[in-house]
Amino acid sequence: MSRKRRAIVTEMGYSTPDRIVVRGHDLPGELLGRINLGDMAFLEMMGRMPTSGESVLFNALAVTLVEHGLTPSALSARLTFTGAPESIQAAVAAGLSGLGSVFVGTTEDSARLLQEAIPDPHRPPGDLRALAARIVADWHRRGALIPGIGHPLHKPIDPRTPRLFALAAENGFDGPYIALMQSVAAEAAEVYGKVLPINATGAIGACCSELRIPWRACRGIGVFARAVGLVGHIMEEMHTPIARELWTRAEDEAREHALAGGGGG
Amino acid sequence: MSRKRRAIVTEMGYSTPDRIVVRGHDLPGELLGRINLGDMAFLEMMGRMPTSGESVLFNALAVTLVEHGLTPSALSARLTFTGAPESIQAAVAAGLSGLGSVFVGTTEDSARLLQEAIPDPHRPPGDLRALAARIVADWHRRGALIPGIGHPLHKPIDPRTPRLFALAAENGFDGPYIALMQSVAAEAAEVYGKVLPINATGAIGACCSELRIPWRACRGIGVFARAVGLVGHIMEEMHTPIARELWTRAEDEAREHALAGGGGG
Amino acid sequence: MSRKRRAIVTEMGYSTPDRIVVRGHDLPGELLGRINLGDMAFLEMMGRMPTSGESVLFNALAVTLVEHGLTPSALSARLTFTGAPESIQAAVAAGLSGLGSVFVGTTEDSARLLQEAIPDPHRPPGDLRALAARIVADWHRRGALIPGIGHPLHKPIDPRTPRLFALAAENGFDGPYIALMQSVAAEAAEVYGKVLPINATGAIGACCSELRIPWRACRGIGVFARAVGLVGHIMEEMHTPIARELWTRAEDEAREHALAGGGGG
Amino acid sequence: MSRKRRAIVTEMGYSTPDRIVVRGHDLPGELLGRINLGDMAFLEMMGRMPTSGESVLFNALAVTLVEHGLTPSALSARLTFTGAPESIQAAVAAGLSGLGSVFVGTTEDSARLLQEAIPDPHRPPGDLRALAARIVADWHRRGALIPGIGHPLHKPIDPRTPRLFALAAENGFDGPYIALMQSVAAEAAEVYGKVLPINATGAIGACCSELRIPWRACRGIGVFARAVGLVGHIMEEMHTPIARELWTRAEDEAREHALAGGGGG
Repeated sequence: MSRKRRAIVTEMGYSTPDRIVVRGHDLPGELLGRINLGDMAFLEMMGRMPTSGESVLFNALAVTLVEHGLTPSALSARLTFTGAPESIQAAVAAGLSGLGSVFVGTTEDSARLLQEAIPDPHRPPGDLRALAARIVADWHRRGALIPGIGHPLHKPIDPRTPRLFALAAENGFDGPYIALMQSVAAEAAEVYGKVLPINATGAIGACCSELRIPWRACRGIGVFARAVGLVGHIMEEMHTPIARELWTRAEDEAREHALAGGGGG
Repeated sequence: MSRKRRAIVTEMGYSTPDRIVVRGHDLPGELLGRINLGDMAFLEMMGRMPTSGESVLFNALAVTLVEHGLTPSALSARLTFTGAPESIQAAVAAGLSGLGSVFVGTTEDSARLLQEAIPDPHRPPGDLRALAARIVADWHRRGALIPGIGHPLHKPIDPRTPRLFALAAENGFDGPYIALMQSVAAEAAEVYGKVLPINATGAIGACCSELRIPWRACRGIGVFARAVGLVGHIMEEMHTPIARELWTRAEDEAREHALAGGGGG
Repeated sequence: MSRKRRAIVTEMGYSTPDRIVVRGHDLPGELLGRINLGDMAFLEMMGRMPTSGESVLFNALAVTLVEHGLTPSALSARLTFTGAPESIQAAVAAGLSGLGSVFVGTTEDSARLLQEAIPDPHRPPGDLRALAARIVADWHRRGALIPGIGHPLHKPIDPRTPRLFALAAENGFDGPYIALMQSVAAEAAEVYGKVLPINATGAIGACCSELRIPWRACRGIGVFARAVGLVGHIMEEMHTPIARELWTRAEDEAREHALAGGGGG
Repeated sequence: MSRKRRAIVTEMGYSTPDRIVVRGHDLPGELLGRINLGDMAFLEMMGRMPTSGESVLFNALAVTLVEHGLTPSALSARLTFTGAPESIQAAVAAGLSGLGSVFVGTTEDSARLLQEAIPDPHRPPGDLRALAARIVADWHRRGALIPGIGHPLHKPIDPRTPRLFALAAENGFDGPYIALMQSVAAEAAEVYGKVLPINATGAIGACCSELRIPWRACRGIGVFARAVGLVGHIMEEMHTPIARELWTRAEDEAREHALAGGGGG
């Protein structure tokens, strides 16, 4: 077979006996002690070091996504740990597996909406309100929920949103994507006739867009941030376990129903 | 059944309509824009904010573990992404699943050795060299490799180790665990009769111990740090893929062997 | 909060001190020694025992999906095992994580096409060829590849397809879905102007539809079948490892490129 | 670098344009329609077709392990599906990740005990009761629970055990490993002074040993069997969901505790 071989290359990094290079930087000399974990994530994703403004905003986005309490993801990690306590990594992997189209994966939906509406942020459309009106009308006509707005619990506002937008403004990232997100939310409130705050997902999608992070990569921030949170949950599960109690309750309730004729047959 | 129910509780966090609390801190007001991702990880794991010295050292440990090039873990994540590009989280989960007893899981081995040798760091033994000699003799007698020392590539030193120990010293964490690790390495070089540098795993295990992180939790730092790195690899795989090439090469080579009678039968 | 609680119920099974019930059947008395693993899978998925004809066809579908050689999924499982040999389950989990939209997940695409075209198999449309023509025209107009037909390697026919269709016919399952799949393939060959055999995915999608398995569940067959195959690969990796060789080759090639200036910078 | 390359080989299978070979057998011609999924699993693991007796016993072992109701593994899969319903494979992967040292992984512990006690089944020790006594005394002295005996729910016997041992006997597999397991259980009941039935894990470990399956591979049977069961749970979750209810209950209960001052601070 005369298939043409493609080279195996990476720009992520490599090692020699006396050097460890990550994204072109000497790890011990240039990175350790000089950058924090969020900056390292930015370097990994974008291929360059963040500016100080980018560092503040990017770290804030990641911190927002670390901990959301007893989510399905956290419960899944804790239940997995119960069966395989020798494998913390497997528990985190199980927890991450559920960050799909319903939960954390949604961060990319609002980023996509914004980046498809404004492909080139250096040439934003002149009339953002008209653009927002067209977007809202389009989603409303299809009977769909607009990504990034509305929240079942946090009303009338999601307290993360104003804080993230303030951080963006303080660091020079109050650009067309955040403005468009705000116009969309305002327009949607009128068209749908109810309170529709920009939720954390929408705020993060807008801030990612201002940071020039491609929408396809936004979910990745949620994934590693949640990995941090899941390690926290597993450490708590080590000393204050809840997974066995959840399991026993579920099993007992299901057994009672089955024996009462309500299932199992 | 009259089983006594245990309460479902967590100290990780909770939300109300206008508040989001993480580890007792108001997320928007006290955390966003004020702490970096590494500090957030420390808060999640230890239940309190790091001091500025802890922040520097803990972030450095995490940054050390983010990126190691084309590891089995990175290759597994990239191969998974090839089959399920709609699920970045699944690719990261697959990559994390291999961080077991052979690779990143080893960070806990050196931490365990040190913490079991010095259960109470406020009362370290008077003669660390004698303790190190006993430890080395014990491992040597069992014919086992001492965790945290020796490296197949980085010789005569692992360049990460002196940098991490310097950061520990600058921030007041040059305590008995680092001293014991150094004594163990020196003693082992004599007993085993070869160059045995303290590798990154050993340096991290010692620094974690100085930070009072229980050895059972050390692997967790490697898990979330590597999640950051895997997101980087998947972003690279999006625009410069290598997984299909690896697959095709492996498949072609195996087929040729099978058809030549060397397998498959 | 006065939320209405929903009951936790399942019909999958339950246990009491002297009984183990699965899907309404006594496990030791009615299932062990009486049904094979494929039948058990049918019982789990469909909630009833298969007929003898269903048993033959369903087992054949599952057997088809077990082993496809050194796929990305098998490579990912083997690489994961290298790092966590104490966790066979994690290696299988990593391998399964890549069975998404590109590989095994595609079984549901052809089943969906067929089931949406013929919602009620008891009332198939009179003219299947006209229906096939409309389907092919629709996909061709969108410039998309029709799921279930065409194969990069197996030409002019995929040898699994005639065998599966023969088994369907022998057991009374040669119904409208298989007929439609054949009409679609014939029509597509003309419209696209090239050899487009019904591949295994298309044959399985059609047979699943004849077995009244909802298209959303078809991927599940591939998932558990491949779990069987991945256990086989991991057993082989135990005594004839290849993962470390794949890793070393990739790492060496990437390092050489980086040092030659082709990356890493 | 002059490293010697090792060949990439596999005996699992390969494809050419007109052939698909699995473990040396032509898949369409020799396997489809002729063997069931359990036989295929035996072929994958052992490299040869099972005899009819091996087929009955091996399928029974696998069927035993498919469905155990609302286990932590099943709950984890269902919670994962809630967040990523587009990825059935990720939900199964999450469920499998917890099959470690505490649950399904235990099948290998009893197999290991037996295979280490009788390394060569063709030359079993003359006095199994004396061997059993030594084994029990050894575990009892260490204060450990003997793998394969005792069950929290199934008392005084586990109903799966007599059925599996009867199937073994009917098919000529009532050899020294089953006999030793029975002697160990009888001896343990005396030494520990309580009812200690051979549980399903012990029965499976003994039957695997009679089938000459290496103990390191026994866990694999549980892994693919449970993958079958998890697909069943996910199909049920599609039409009768319980995961969201479990999540909401856990979150509500934790929030109430936190607001009452019992946590979150």
